[in-house]
Amino acid sequence: MTAATVATEAIDVTVSEVGTRDGLQNIDTILPTDAKKAWIAAEAAAGVPEIEVGSFVPPRLLPQLADTAELVRFAKTLPGLNVAVLVPNLRGAQAALAEGAHHISMPLSVSETHSLANVRKSHAQMFDEIAAVVAAVAAQPAAARPTLEVSLSTAFGCTLEGPVPEDRVVAMAERAIALGADEVGLSDTTGYGNPSQVRRLTTRIRAAVGRERLTGVHLHNTRGQGLANVMAALEVGITTIDSSLGGLGGCPFAPGASGNIVTEDLVFLLEAMGLRTGIDIDRLLAVRGDVQAALPDETLYGFVAEAGLPKGFAYARAEAS
Amino acid sequence: MTAATVATEAIDVTVSEVGTRDGLQNIDTILPTDAKKAWIAAEAAAGVPEIEVGSFVPPRLLPQLADTAELVRFAKTLPGLNVAVLVPNLRGAQAALAEGAHHISMPLSVSETHSLANVRKSHAQMFDEIAAVVAAVAAQPAAARPTLEVSLSTAFGCTLEGPVPEDRVVAMAERAIALGADEVGLSDTTGYGNPSQVRRLTTRIRAAVGRERLTGVHLHNTRGQGLANVMAALEVGITTIDSSLGGLGGCPFAPGASGNIVTEDLVFLLEAMGLRTGIDIDRLLAVRGDVQAALPDETLYGFVAEAGLPKGFAYARAEAS
Repeated sequence: MTAATVATEAIDVTVSEVGTRDGLQNIDTILPTDAKKAWIAAEAAAGVPEIEVGSFVPPRLLPQLADTAELVRFAKTLPGLNVAVLVPNLRGAQAALAEGAHHISMPLSVSETHSLANVRKSHAQMFDEIAAVVAAVAAQPAAARPTLEVSLSTAFGCTLEGPVPEDRVVAMAERAIALGADEVGLSDTTGYGNPSQVRRLTTRIRAAVGRERLTGVHLHNTRGQGLANVMAALEVGITTIDSSLGGLGGCPFAPGASGNIVTEDLVFLLEAMGLRTGIDIDRLLAVRGDVQAALPDETLYGFVAEAGLPKGFAYARAEAS
Repeated sequence: MTAATVATEAIDVTVSEVGTRDGLQNIDTILPTDAKKAWIAAEAAAGVPEIEVGSFVPPRLLPQLADTAELVRFAKTLPGLNVAVLVPNLRGAQAALAEGAHHISMPLSVSETHSLANVRKSHAQMFDEIAAVVAAVAAQPAAARPTLEVSLSTAFGCTLEGPVPEDRVVAMAERAIALGADEVGLSDTTGYGNPSQVRRLTTRIRAAVGRERLTGVHLHNTRGQGLANVMAALEVGITTIDSSLGGLGGCPFAPGASGNIVTEDLVFLLEAMGLRTGIDIDRLLAVRGDVQAALPDETLYGFVAEAGLPKGFAYARAEAS
């Protein structure tokens, strides 16, 4: 059985790779488009079911991601891959719709201070923008319509404002859904989150907007709590977890916050626990090697790459192979 | 309120520092006794309720720990501190009893191959040794009797044998309790453990020997799963978690296995979740700085030390301060 066939089988948890967006936007090196394509293709071949290939932001702001349109077109040729992009505004969403991205994620910072620093928009302006994006998505023919997720960033606290009131997070989730977003996501932009908070917030938001409207979380590992927070997310039934190959990335506008959850370590956690991801860890580690070779000056994080798989390790899907 | 008074208050989870034993036995540098005393005193002052100060093993095997007797005597002068030591055999236990250690932990490797490599004893020989230690402890006057824990190492798998049968772990726990040990502990010597396994094994052993006979786990972070495994342990009601300042340590006889759970990151996890540890994180980070200065060539691990506490962070015990 090849990894390509694995990816088409039932999986229990969707690991969504964000390294090609969240990772690359946070380093100075501009990875050549061909190297990005090789990364995306190799991860898809390793069984990764969803990849956020880029962000439709002005190239003058993030020249590292200027080739996002070409990457979406390329990624859409890979069988079975869910092609995700981030968009900060209507203009970005229009570009994503033009390329036919499968999934559009639009960040909405619960901290208005962070929102102003990050996208230079107030909450009121962001909700207007969301409404415009909803309308643009709705204008697409049904078959070409992507899922639209509003990703609530700084949902677990802000390096500028400190704690953010949970009532505000819930209210903003309700507003985003009321405006017509398909789903909301929770993002621990600053690495402030703890498992109790993950449990509490996901539970409250699901009670407010419906279980099917919150299926994914984007957790950071800034304080080493990434996989502990994943445990809490799994416990309440979250089924999509963002992560980054080698833990590349973080948030450049949240000082001191860096470090995504490491995809390799996350997949090991899930498979070891008996949760199928469809991902071949050895092939994933090979991709990591390629990415490190393409980015020789960047530090990659994670433990499984160094320690290797346990002797006699069995995948959750072993019985089907 | 000072940290010293904090430590005397109710705590929800006992963080047991093993860096002074597990950490120092795995590095070549021999830390001077005065530096060890300073470390122990400073951690106790930061509120750490239990410290494994050393191991009673022959100095020719582990010269780094040759001053364990003096450290037990010193640590016993620190108010409120539970003074733990590791002993591999009866001779070690006699030394621990002579110094009046409060807690004696005796490793018993579930992998016989590992047992032979680590302490050069078969399972049969180890059970004989345990019986002898039980008798020596029982011969003490009640007031001077330490708690005796048999710590089941390689309980989650062995780098030499691979997976270890869970039935064997449970049977060995039962045997240790039947021989008269006060409690058993579970040790993920090789960093193979996953949260499902932690839940399953702790639950099975507690069902077999009684809940109060398994209260502590010693988890490694070799594959980055340390705090995720802690989450599973907390879920089933484990109340003592071993960890090491800066993640120093591991197991020298399990190739590729290194990296304890980082005390700083663990305490942050627990306090952020609302579980009281009695420990002041800023003071703990100061101790880390001192230990790094005393061991300039050693790599310390962990994230909280670099990222700092979240803005507006509140301890679980904040309401009492």
